[in-house]
Amino acid sequence: MSVGGNESYGRKAFKRSKAHFADRITADGRDGRPVASGRYRLVVSRACPWASRALVSRRLLGLEDALSLAVADPIQDDRSWRFTLDPDGRDPVLGIRYLSEAYDRRETGYPGGVSVPAIVDVPSGKLVTNDYQQITLDLATEWSGLHREGAPDLYPEALRDEIDTVMADVYEDVNNGVYRAGFATDQEEYEGACAAVFRRLELLAVRLSGQRYLVGDTITEADIRLFTTLVRFDAVYHGHFKCNRWKLTEQQVLWAYVRDLYQTPGFGDTVDFDHIKRHYYQVHSGINPTGIVPHGPDLSGWLTPHHREELGGRPFGDGTPPGPVPAAEEVPARGRP
Amino acid sequence: MSVGGNESYGRKAFKRSKAHFADRITADGRDGRPVASGRYRLVVSRACPWASRALVSRRLLGLEDALSLAVADPIQDDRSWRFTLDPDGRDPVLGIRYLSEAYDRRETGYPGGVSVPAIVDVPSGKLVTNDYQQITLDLATEWSGLHREGAPDLYPEALRDEIDTVMADVYEDVNNGVYRAGFATDQEEYEGACAAVFRRLELLAVRLSGQRYLVGDTITEADIRLFTTLVRFDAVYHGHFKCNRWKLTEQQVLWAYVRDLYQTPGFGDTVDFDHIKRHYYQVHSGINPTGIVPHGPDLSGWLTPHHREELGGRPFGDGTPPGPVPAAEEVPARGRP
Repeated sequence: MSVGGNESYGRKAFKRSKAHFADRITADGRDGRPVASGRYRLVVSRACPWASRALVSRRLLGLEDALSLAVADPIQDDRSWRFTLDPDGRDPVLGIRYLSEAYDRRETGYPGGVSVPAIVDVPSGKLVTNDYQQITLDLATEWSGLHREGAPDLYPEALRDEIDTVMADVYEDVNNGVYRAGFATDQEEYEGACAAVFRRLELLAVRLSGQRYLVGDTITEADIRLFTTLVRFDAVYHGHFKCNRWKLTEQQVLWAYVRDLYQTPGFGDTVDFDHIKRHYYQVHSGINPTGIVPHGPDLSGWLTPHHREELGGRPFGDGTPPGPVPAAEEVPARGRP
Repeated sequence: MSVGGNESYGRKAFKRSKAHFADRITADGRDGRPVASGRYRLVVSRACPWASRALVSRRLLGLEDALSLAVADPIQDDRSWRFTLDPDGRDPVLGIRYLSEAYDRRETGYPGGVSVPAIVDVPSGKLVTNDYQQITLDLATEWSGLHREGAPDLYPEALRDEIDTVMADVYEDVNNGVYRAGFATDQEEYEGACAAVFRRLELLAVRLSGQRYLVGDTITEADIRLFTTLVRFDAVYHGHFKCNRWKLTEQQVLWAYVRDLYQTPGFGDTVDFDHIKRHYYQVHSGINPTGIVPHGPDLSGWLTPHHREELGGRPFGDGTPPGPVPAAEEVPARGRP
């Protein structure tokens, strides 16, 4: 089974693969893939936390016009991610029905999984990269010539060491930790992963009790990566992945932190709770054989005051918030609180 | 599959069977089964909410010496409830390894499920009753000659109509409602059951916001029946049965109400969260094929102040609380907060 970010589960302990296609799209085109407006298409699932990082970065940086967007159906079939949400079941720009077709054009007979996020070269229809760890860093740095006016610096040079350190812990224990817990096939493996999730979350809560964002006083890549896991926590990781020591709604600091981000333009407006719930509960039949999608949790709390502005902080630094979501990319009402 | 209270799930909508063996043990012995101290044995699983009603009633009424107790292993095998917690895997009083042996002595080739609570006649080794709706009512009324001094009246005559009405709604939407949600095999069936669970809980919260107990100003049978479902809510019904609109810890009135009861002698001291979690998560392989038992929820909140005494009420009416739990019946530390 292949889901976002190259995951597989089965009899052995859960392992997340490194991305196979790691070409970089750069300002100077040193990999043969220069940044260019309109040339590439970002393929995501709004269900997938790894792909959702790129959704948030693209919004914050104002890259919507420069880098177009394809949203896959949250339910994969045996050929993986598909464009069944689009007219005739084809992506209107790439003309393909399955994301795997772009992988095939890149490498015939590629035996690995098909994952999102993926960036496809529109003229050739070939996959360029599915490197979920690198894509957002490049959007923040290599794509700066196409950023909107007032775009924040999501990966400031002076703070990169600290951001990288925080992100490494968050990746190991939280971003990937919830998957290790959820896809565990024995009790011991599960217990270890689940304990690590909550140990790390408790440390993060201490860190965030006195500062508005993870590093420095502005939103950075580190916040984006924590957000995409936290926003899914109560909806899917708590029940479906059994990370149920507490709900985020019961952890005052983290619940306020994630609501603050959710209510910041560019974060919550990318989130589709309907896609998230249907994907996890319907695709992972080894965990949820009935395929029933829970009614809860009650989402009304997401829009309540968080009071995090009392901690200070400058969300966009010297920049400004992004404008409204392009009409064609609005999340349907059933996916929102 | 057969669990407590005669349940079965499969392709069809979940149905709870009526108890098959409904002989009553009465003060006047009109069914040939007179109340007598030491003659009967109550068989329960501490995992099972239906059996746990009898555990609470027996404690509140001080029937521990008159009606002895057998506690089954929370994990059934293909012959159902078994006494693998006892030395040599046999109930020391009945001398049997499986509860089904008492059923067989009562009726050869009985085709139905084996359920708890069950009351077995010790001299003959025969099952007397598995009538989960009647057993506690009879403990409260027919067994009064053996009640401890200061035992409360759990089913006061003047309030029976109101108690019966409340219990009927609680049974349909809550006690059994969580099972209809959890064992649903299609989305529509699940949605209907889950909506009814939360609609009823919200009505109950309104009722309980101004009064300490469900009916009158003392603990009654109605509170016992609501308690045995609520105490399991966050531990198993929220995640495993997908009743996840909110956790009880997020519903201020019900969370205080159930903590008040939990902290009342005779309620919380019968509860084994370890048995509860292992039973649901390991037995229902159709819902949780990995058999992994979640680490959560954090139980530390159960012992926090509830402030419900501010509403007045007299827990035991003109009576008194029960004494300590008999040493042999104490719940092990791993099952307690």
